[in-house]
This record gives sequence, structure tokens and C-alpha cells, in this order.
Amino acid sequence: MHEHLTRRRIEFADTDMGGIVHFARYLVFMETAEHEFLRELGTSVDLVLEDGRHIGWPRVAVSCEYKSPARFGDVLDIRVRVLRKGRKSLTYRIDFRLGGREVARGQVTSVCCELAPGQPIRSIPIPAGIAERIEEAPRET
Amino acid sequence: MHEHLTRRRIEFADTDMGGIVHFARYLVFMETAEHEFLRELGTSVDLVLEDGRHIGWPRVAVSCEYKSPARFGDVLDIRVRVLRKGRKSLTYRIDFRLGGREVARGQVTSVCCELAPGQPIRSIPIPAGIAERIEEAPRET
Amino acid sequence: MHEHLTRRRIEFADTDMGGIVHFARYLVFMETAEHEFLRELGTSVDLVLEDGRHIGWPRVAVSCEYKSPARFGDVLDIRVRVLRKGRKSLTYRIDFRLGGREVARGQVTSVCCELAPGQPIRSIPIPAGIAERIEEAPRET
Amino acid sequence: MHEHLTRRRIEFADTDMGGIVHFARYLVFMETAEHEFLRELGTSVDLVLEDGRHIGWPRVAVSCEYKSPARFGDVLDIRVRVLRKGRKSLTYRIDFRLGGREVARGQVTSVCCELAPGQPIRSIPIPAGIAERIEEAPRET
Repeated sequence: MHEHLTRRRIEFADTDMGGIVHFARYLVFMETAEHEFLRELGTSVDLVLEDGRHIGWPRVAVSCEYKSPARFGDVLDIRVRVLRKGRKSLTYRIDFRLGGREVARGQVTSVCCELAPGQPIRSIPIPAGIAERIEEAPRET
Repeated sequence: MHEHLTRRRIEFADTDMGGIVHFARYLVFMETAEHEFLRELGTSVDLVLEDGRHIGWPRVAVSCEYKSPARFGDVLDIRVRVLRKGRKSLTYRIDFRLGGREVARGQVTSVCCELAPGQPIRSIPIPAGIAERIEEAPRET
Repeated sequence: MHEHLTRRRIEFADTDMGGIVHFARYLVFMETAEHEFLRELGTSVDLVLEDGRHIGWPRVAVSCEYKSPARFGDVLDIRVRVLRKGRKSLTYRIDFRLGGREVARGQVTSVCCELAPGQPIRSIPIPAGIAERIEEAPRET
Repeated sequence: MHEHLTRRRIEFADTDMGGIVHFARYLVFMETAEHEFLRELGTSVDLVLEDGRHIGWPRVAVSCEYKSPARFGDVLDIRVRVLRKGRKSLTYRIDFRLGGREVARGQVTSVCCELAPGQPIRSIPIPAGIAERIEEAPRET
């Protein structure tokens, strides 16, 4: 799987005094869309493996370009695509559209990590059972 | 100790499309003011006791009345007072003012709990070392 | 109409370091549920009347009791009921449940106001076209 | 002026169930630091010019790299620097440090815009009175 489509209605609390969606909220939208992708894949961002290890996906880099504003009540079309699949990390591109209009495009890199209580967070190879279900999206032209 | 005074400048992200502070943000302001009170007291909302037990203060009830709006850049005067000190809980009243004008008044009840990983959250008596430093505020007339 | 039912999945950004939904987020959930109720009613929280007046519903009072925690991925059942219908205000009760378990119960009072740019916010009677579609919920026993 | 230094204590509501600051909160920290820079400069992100025009600074692009986690109660050192000064835009770099440790580094580009009610947002040259007080920071080696 390399893509997930979802929709999201803008809530009042997503807006700021400029009358539009606050720019930091897009990161939350991106994160939730990524989690839906993982759930559709049959895994979760908050996973306990069979051997008891607790796996998480902290973000190491994120970026977003804002193309046009979104407002209260708008229903955004959100598309998540796997841009790069590394041994330990996934880079997603997320596109936000409102009807035919581009609203924002983001990118985020999440690293597969083992989260042991009281231990520093440690990156690990993506477990095979998850990695084999993910592929890079075909390049768009 | 029964009172703590603090100030807070309204940030852009605190506002909504109505041009004023979003009503849910006052709960965050209340929580942070309560934490400052605990810190001034020499304890913390996130405490490990000498015997290794982890203590927290989950909220069980909160209310807020909104008297007049606050806007971006406003600097609010925030006063936390201990309204009721129970064996296991504290009830605070929090007043928000802007100059002479009342902005909001809130109330929150937090319960002292032991947080053990993998266990249900369990209320416990406020540890003596903390309880003895807290007193109820004198009634205002 | 006196009731609206909805569901909402807890997002990662809704949680705090306690591992549960942050208590201020319930106010956002309440607000969005109230807005859905208004939308189902055929109106909006952000309305321009035929005579050009801009109507909004600022909150004047809110309260919430927290009964049991909700966590990332949980899907909450949310029920909004009209508790009191005044000439200028509506008081809602909002119940949050997870399966058979009560998670939280909130109450919020919103006042119908005219929002004219550069003018103070002014309460007005609920426009007849909206008021006639809303009724108080039957008392529960 | 080309730089502004500030500090910020991490609040409970800034954290998520991972026990660390939620990655989207850094954008709010960046925005507030940028606003402090503008205020120190003697202007504001929400400005009405002498000729009555309303000026704002919507973001068009933001990015952030997360180097190490920050936790509840940590006091971050935040440094804002002007990376590029364009005719209509400013690009800032924002560095977050905790003691000697790098926590995050961000970049944001804000465009000077005229915000007229009911009109589309329109980019304009930075007003001379503001532009003359801002300079690019010297390159770091």
C-alpha cells in the first residue's frame, strides 16, 4: 500500500483571529492522516509487538507550504502518499485540497523507534511484518 | 500557602475566528497557573515520591464563566486560590482580569492520585509533606 | 429537534503525557458537537441573516465532569441535548461514553449575539426561524 | 535588528502521550517568538497603518527538524534570526535549545499582506517604516 485518502471538516477551534485555519493545525491533520494510513495497513502508530517491545514513530522532520486558506466548515480532501521508504523511516507527502483548489502540501519523516520506559528513544528497522505491506508511491508527473 | 498570582500574554494561536481567545484555552491557562502554584510550593504536578511512587493530579471537574473577551496581545492577570482542601483533593478558583475588567472565572478540582504503569489510576491522600504547606484561602466578602 | 448523536475518534494530539485525553480537549469536542447539531438543524454557528446581520454564539459558561479516561484511538459516543432554551440562549448537556462506560459529561451555555465589526458583541433574541426548530429535550429519569 | 532571544517553559498541555512536546507545538512556539521579535521592533503582527490599512503576516512555508525531545517543565532557549529579508517577505530561522543540547530548528517564511474585510488576502511590500528596522542576520560559520 502506498496511499490513503481521507476527508476532514474544519472545526471552529482550528481557526485563528485571521479567520482561517491556524498554520500549526495542518501538522495535526497530517499526523492523523498518517495514523489512518497505518491503521488501514493493519498496524498502529502505537504498537506493542509480539515480543513485548513497544514501537512508536516519532517525527524527525516536517515541512508545509500554504497555498490558499481554508475556513471553518470547509471539508478538506487529504491524500497521504509514501514518498520514501527507508530501512528505519518513512517519508510521507500529504496534500490538502478543497474542491479543485490546492490548500497546502506537507511532508513528514517518521522514524520507527523502540520506546522502553526509562530508556532513551532508539531507532530500529521497521518490523518486517509492517515493512512488507508498505511501498513507495509511483512518481507523479 | 493559599494563593498564587501570575500573568500571561495572549498568543495568536490562543485566538479563534471570532477574534477573541478560544474558550477552551482558559482551561490550559488554569492548569498552568495551578502548576505554577505547586511549583512555588516546592512540589510539582508530576512528582516522584521518596518511596518511588509516582503522583499526579488528574482533574475531576472544571467550570468556567466567561465575563468579557480577551484578545491577541492582552496580558491577563491570573490569580489562583485554594477554595477547598480535602483529604485527597484540592479545589482551586482561578480569576482572570485585564486591568480592572473581569475576563473569566474558573474552578477546578484535582485529585491526588498514584500513577503506576499498567495500573488503573488510584486516588490517595495528599502526601503530608505537600498537604502541610497548603491552606484554604480566606473567604472573600 | 432536541438531540444530536455523533462519534469522534481520539487523535494523538488530543492526548497528554498522562497517556489520556487532555481535559481541555473535551471543550473542543463539545463545541464541535454543538455545531453539528446546529448544522443538522439547517443553520450554522457562523451565520449571516437575510438582513445582513452576522450572528454568532459565544459561550458564557461551561462545565465538565471527568468520569473515566479516554485514550488514543478510542471512538467516543457523543450525545448533545438541549437542556434549556431561553429567549437569547441555549444550554446544552453533552455526554461522552465509550461503549457502556461514562467518560465525561459537560454543559455549555451559548448566547445568540450580533457580531458587527468594530462594535461590542451584543446579545439578541434567537431569530424565530432558528428558535422554532429547537426544543428542550424531555427530562431523563 | 536581526535577532531576538526568548525563553519558554513547557506546559502540560504541550505534551502528548509519548511524554514529550507534541511536534506541532513547536510551530506555535516559533510564531510567538516571531511576534515577540516584531514587538521588540516596535511593530506588531496585527497592525493598522496610519492610512487605515490592516497589515498581517500569513505564513507561506514552514519547516522544522526535531533533534531531541523536550519535556514538561523544561525551559527552552529560543533564538529567532532573520535569515532572508525580501521586498514582501521575511524568512526566519528559529533555534530551540535546552542547556547545551539542541532540541529543534525551524524555519518560517511570512509574507506581508493587506487584510481588507471581504477581500482576498493580498501581498504588499513591507512598509518602509518597518523594513528599515530589520536586517538579515550575519551568516554563521
